[in-house]
Amino acid sequence: MPKLLILTSDKTEYQRFIESAQLPDLEVISDPAQADLVLGEPKSILYMLPLLSHLKWAQSIYAGVEPLVDPSQRRDYILTNARGVFGEWMSEYVFGYLLFLEKKMLDRMRAQQAREWKRDESGTLRGKTLGLLGVGSIGAHLAGTAKHFGMHVRGYTLASEATDEVDEYFHPTTGKSNGDISTLHQFASGLDYLVSVLPRTKETNQLVDEAFLEALPNHAVFINVGRGNSVDEAALVEALNEGRLGAAVLDVFAQEPVSPEHPFWSTPNLYMTYHTSAISYPDDITKLFVENYRLYRQGKPLKYIVDFERGY
Amino acid sequence: MPKLLILTSDKTEYQRFIESAQLPDLEVISDPAQADLVLGEPKSILYMLPLLSHLKWAQSIYAGVEPLVDPSQRRDYILTNARGVFGEWMSEYVFGYLLFLEKKMLDRMRAQQAREWKRDESGTLRGKTLGLLGVGSIGAHLAGTAKHFGMHVRGYTLASEATDEVDEYFHPTTGKSNGDISTLHQFASGLDYLVSVLPRTKETNQLVDEAFLEALPNHAVFINVGRGNSVDEAALVEALNEGRLGAAVLDVFAQEPVSPEHPFWSTPNLYMTYHTSAISYPDDITKLFVENYRLYRQGKPLKYIVDFERGY
Repeated sequence: MPKLLILTSDKTEYQRFIESAQLPDLEVISDPAQADLVLGEPKSILYMLPLLSHLKWAQSIYAGVEPLVDPSQRRDYILTNARGVFGEWMSEYVFGYLLFLEKKMLDRMRAQQAREWKRDESGTLRGKTLGLLGVGSIGAHLAGTAKHFGMHVRGYTLASEATDEVDEYFHPTTGKSNGDISTLHQFASGLDYLVSVLPRTKETNQLVDEAFLEALPNHAVFINVGRGNSVDEAALVEALNEGRLGAAVLDVFAQEPVSPEHPFWSTPNLYMTYHTSAISYPDDITKLFVENYRLYRQGKPLKYIVDFERGY
Repeated sequence: MPKLLILTSDKTEYQRFIESAQLPDLEVISDPAQADLVLGEPKSILYMLPLLSHLKWAQSIYAGVEPLVDPSQRRDYILTNARGVFGEWMSEYVFGYLLFLEKKMLDRMRAQQAREWKRDESGTLRGKTLGLLGVGSIGAHLAGTAKHFGMHVRGYTLASEATDEVDEYFHPTTGKSNGDISTLHQFASGLDYLVSVLPRTKETNQLVDEAFLEALPNHAVFINVGRGNSVDEAALVEALNEGRLGAAVLDVFAQEPVSPEHPFWSTPNLYMTYHTSAISYPDDITKLFVENYRLYRQGKPLKYIVDFERGY
């Protein structure tokens, strides 16, 4: 009989959702030594790993599982992450910020404070070109929303071309995401918006560097909802300070929380949010766990298995 | 041979688009006395009406044609307005502002100024209920975008139920838009967002009044991209001041431009834009004119004919 340990900050809510799913034979327990299944935040699972002597399967409630794929950690269990549930939140965040900028909302608020009837024209999403760095389930959702708004979509991926909503694919010829600079810059050239949804891996390190930023048009908006490691932060600050980039909206950073001394806080046209773009809701994650639990009981391969070597 | 007078501020651009369409027999002229066709802004057409002795058909470049449907004006010509081209801009505006509010963008900016890593959760569009006052071509586009974001959509219309994306329709039983208060308040009850796209007519006057605002939940957001006459502005200010409404985003007003003394400028949670939500692009409007011109030459009924009595 499978024994599940829940390691999340809203454990009560998860327990309620899981119990109401009435999964056959499942017992929710609190002793890590007895648990063969774990559902939780990657960091909480990491801290508990030494005690989880019977662990067979761990389901992460987040997409990013960096703490658990570190080479120093054990890999003698199946790790699955959360996919397919964050695309909607990412779409709301990304298109919310693009519209915030195109509709000149800050200008309109300043005009209101000055009691000024200011009729300058808004920009539009329609007709613009969006570039996606990484096209997994989140990128696919963003591409769908971009098409709804009449945009042209480019996708930069290692090899996959699974999403029909992407109009043009770009791949590195070497099979490494940073392996072919010219393809990457071809992808960047002419983009109105660049959105990175890349996971943290060795290959994504500093992908958005000075030369990449230089390849973007000066009016381009860069949004990062992937991981902070993919950005050369100093080069980004410089590009914004010198007006070589329209704006940047960052939800993720090389170091989180960002230290109070970091130049980001006061860089012009840089909008920070605080790793809040995706929301992990217990009912969404429970659905995913329930689906995987049924496969697990049937001895079938689970969904969203993490490749420890690849890192996602 | 039809003779067209262009009455718009960007006349050169319109002329270029129309000439490149190579319409059979059409001549663009500048003498109003000779013109049988006019393409232009409603106010410019109004000023020219006394000189347009041969006018047969006028195509407005806007959706709202209030100056021309005034009972004191002549009605001996066919008036068509612009429809089907503004839905996209209205969607960008409306969902941009809803996301601006749900994603707490102002709070995030204030946190950034204070160098504070502030991780409070965002709200979502998904699962929310949007109410549309008026479901014409603009309302239909808004409904489609709402469904893309996983929302529930209510529509309040006189009688039509033409848009599939609307989940629930509400109609006044008397056949007048303000004729049945209880249906209107049933429509308002439980809405997260209310969006008015109503045209200015006698029937829409003060539809959103104190009682209507009272019927909305306290957290509701009201967006007006229709016409200002539909709102009791004093009641709206009071509701916002007293926290009985979440926020209001207004692009249209009873009097435009809004006078510097108006309480709107400094009402809390009220966001003003300046009749900038819809953008009338010459290439969009020219397509519409070209389509209608072909029908006109074939002696067929034109599209988007305005009913002078109804006012839209």
